Amino acid sequence: MKQSSLGNLVQPFHVMELVKAADTLNNQGKPVIHLSIGEPDFPMPKPVEQALAQAISEHKTRYTAALGLPELREAISLYYQTNFQVQVPAHQIVITSGASAALMYACLALINPTDKVLLTDPGYPCNKTFVQMAGGIPDFVQTQEAQNFQPSWADLYKQWTPHTAGVLLASPNNPTGTQLGAQAMQEIVQGVSTQGGFVIVDEIYQSLCYDRPAQSVLQVTGAPSEQIPVVVINSFSKYFGMTGLRLGWMVVPDTLLPAIERFAQNLSICPNTPAQWAALACFTPETLAICEERRLVFKVRRDFVVTALPKAGIELHSTPDSAFYVYAKSPYDSERYCRQLLEQALVCAVPGKDFSEFRGSEMMRFSYANSMDNLETAIERIRLFNNRQLP
Amino acid sequence: MKQSSLGNLVQPFHVMELVKAADTLNNQGKPVIHLSIGEPDFPMPKPVEQALAQAISEHKTRYTAALGLPELREAISLYYQTNFQVQVPAHQIVITSGASAALMYACLALINPTDKVLLTDPGYPCNKTFVQMAGGIPDFVQTQEAQNFQPSWADLYKQWTPHTAGVLLASPNNPTGTQLGAQAMQEIVQGVSTQGGFVIVDEIYQSLCYDRPAQSVLQVTGAPSEQIPVVVINSFSKYFGMTGLRLGWMVVPDTLLPAIERFAQNLSICPNTPAQWAALACFTPETLAICEERRLVFKVRRDFVVTALPKAGIELHSTPDSAFYVYAKSPYDSERYCRQLLEQALVCAVPGKDFSEFRGSEMMRFSYANSMDNLETAIERIRLFNNRQLP
Repeated sequence: MKQSSLGNLVQPFHVMELVKAADTLNNQGKPVIHLSIGEPDFPMPKPVEQALAQAISEHKTRYTAALGLPELREAISLYYQTNFQVQVPAHQIVITSGASAALMYACLALINPTDKVLLTDPGYPCNKTFVQMAGGIPDFVQTQEAQNFQPSWADLYKQWTPHTAGVLLASPNNPTGTQLGAQAMQEIVQGVSTQGGFVIVDEIYQSLCYDRPAQSVLQVTGAPSEQIPVVVINSFSKYFGMTGLRLGWMVVPDTLLPAIERFAQNLSICPNTPAQWAALACFTPETLAICEERRLVFKVRRDFVVTALPKAGIELHSTPDSAFYVYAKSPYDSERYCRQLLEQALVCAVPGKDFSEFRGSEMMRFSYANSMDNLETAIERIRLFNNRQLP
Repeated sequence: MKQSSLGNLVQPFHVMELVKAADTLNNQGKPVIHLSIGEPDFPMPKPVEQALAQAISEHKTRYTAALGLPELREAISLYYQTNFQVQVPAHQIVITSGASAALMYACLALINPTDKVLLTDPGYPCNKTFVQMAGGIPDFVQTQEAQNFQPSWADLYKQWTPHTAGVLLASPNNPTGTQLGAQAMQEIVQGVSTQGGFVIVDEIYQSLCYDRPAQSVLQVTGAPSEQIPVVVINSFSKYFGMTGLRLGWMVVPDTLLPAIERFAQNLSICPNTPAQWAALACFTPETLAICEERRLVFKVRRDFVVTALPKAGIELHSTPDSAFYVYAKSPYDSERYCRQLLEQALVCAVPGKDFSEFRGSEMMRFSYANSMDNLETAIERIRLFNNRQLP
């Protein structure tokens, strides 16, 4: 039984080894604090939970249309209108099994075998797999602290080749918790468009931002079209706290819609049905108020963490303003550091390896999706550990 | 914005055009009876619904392990032991977002670009897309009524080339509702194994069979291994009535497991969490009794339909003994026939085009996932239509 070359190529989440070690410690009665998790520490908002329970009691458990519930596509269209003042027709919005399926359809519909696709480094580890699955070749663009780890069009253009098909960006970005400004975004879309390429923009942490209002590339470009070669990826996981429900959406140009529908029919049939009905409750004032309250909790934690980490001996060279991550320099080789921090200080943070080809061993990621109490304890443990360990 | 060649290649479900026409008729107050649907007409079994509601009330809505809940993998292992008398270790069982994700992981892990993969014709329309997504080339093996539309190893061997990587079978098969016998299955696995290929066996209709006990290829081969190059695909959709929950599973050899885990992590993160908790209730005696009762209802319908359709002018040349489909000769070009049957008799059956490259225009599929009343009315309408229309 021969495994495919893609099967050999695709990378595991290296962090899982660390998480397994953390579980072992926990099972030994040594309670680890996780600053490792890419998942909000809040339960699903109550109104969403109630809508989910209601959908089930109403037997809404059958297949839906491949592109998703029309009602939900309408609700998202209205959300763009109300919250971002941008007109996105409902038919250009596609409901997917998490942002994962959205990234998959976008890559399959846009990338030909041997096409190069620009990805920012550091970035979400799975992006390269989606590109590779479509036969494409990830071409990493190294971003800098001084630019908040986001690229300019000049950075992308420097690496653009005749074989480059497009670029996949994330704003806010994981692992850096930083965003692209509206002007930079505009320049990128315009530049890529001139080259005949595509721009996929991952906005799954969209409303988890702390220093300015949430933004979308669509505010800059308007709805995608033949002339605006943009695909937007979004999710109910992070801001709306529906991680395990596996529900996301994408915004696509009309011209791409038939191919996306064919992929959705063939590869997924439809997204989870009760989750889709539940997601309708995300856009009620009640749920939005809960999510806004949680955003403010994240902001307080962010403020604490960016002040406390440097005092504990962790250098920060960028100011994260979004998502729930801090990407920072590791005191020494990050795999060794994170392993020792776990074993000796019972704090689980994540080495950069999963996020970066270039500087993975230098960098590490802290998640502040944890309670203030735990964050305080964890950072005190880090301080003690660093003071003992560092020269 | 250039669409990928795969985006152009992937086929839509042609039946959707017909379904849209049916919806239009329904909206005009002309009630169409659907013999088109690949979905049980029963709601989710009550104990599964209750387990789902309970999971939600217990906030079981976070990410799970990429390979699925350990408890559910154990339960499926026990199910194989109890119901099929076969030992499948839980760690070889992977929970997936429907059989769709299982087929995707299997194809990505086993097929290299330009590999040929044997698919039976007629068969499930999405199979070719999964093969194409992995860069493979579908190579259709035409099966015959006389062999219940299932291939022998001799049939497959005739088409085997040095570029053939493996074969994807379904037993029970959609659209034919027919199965492979244990001996044929054994010969195929042995033959393919000798060629160094793989056998993916789709068993998503496994327990919906009416003339003999449910079977699995695993009863013939034992658990997959390096020497037994078999991957089994299964689903909670059909027998357990959980279609919209999008939950399935696969059984894989140890050697393939790391690659499957990496694909699951990267492409899906995890299957829907509440659905996984709910699925645990599928294997209780209470749920199994409900499913068994429904199987008997399907059997009564099957018996009725295979008798009534020939009397209504629809020739059957095979005896469907499983799933809930009858695949039959269309009185004339099946697209034209199905369109006219819909418009003039308000019965929606499905032309063969989606299922067959070779004889799609000759053949059509009837689904009996509908009430006995509706089946009786529909077949009477078909009889009247055929008597008026046929020469």
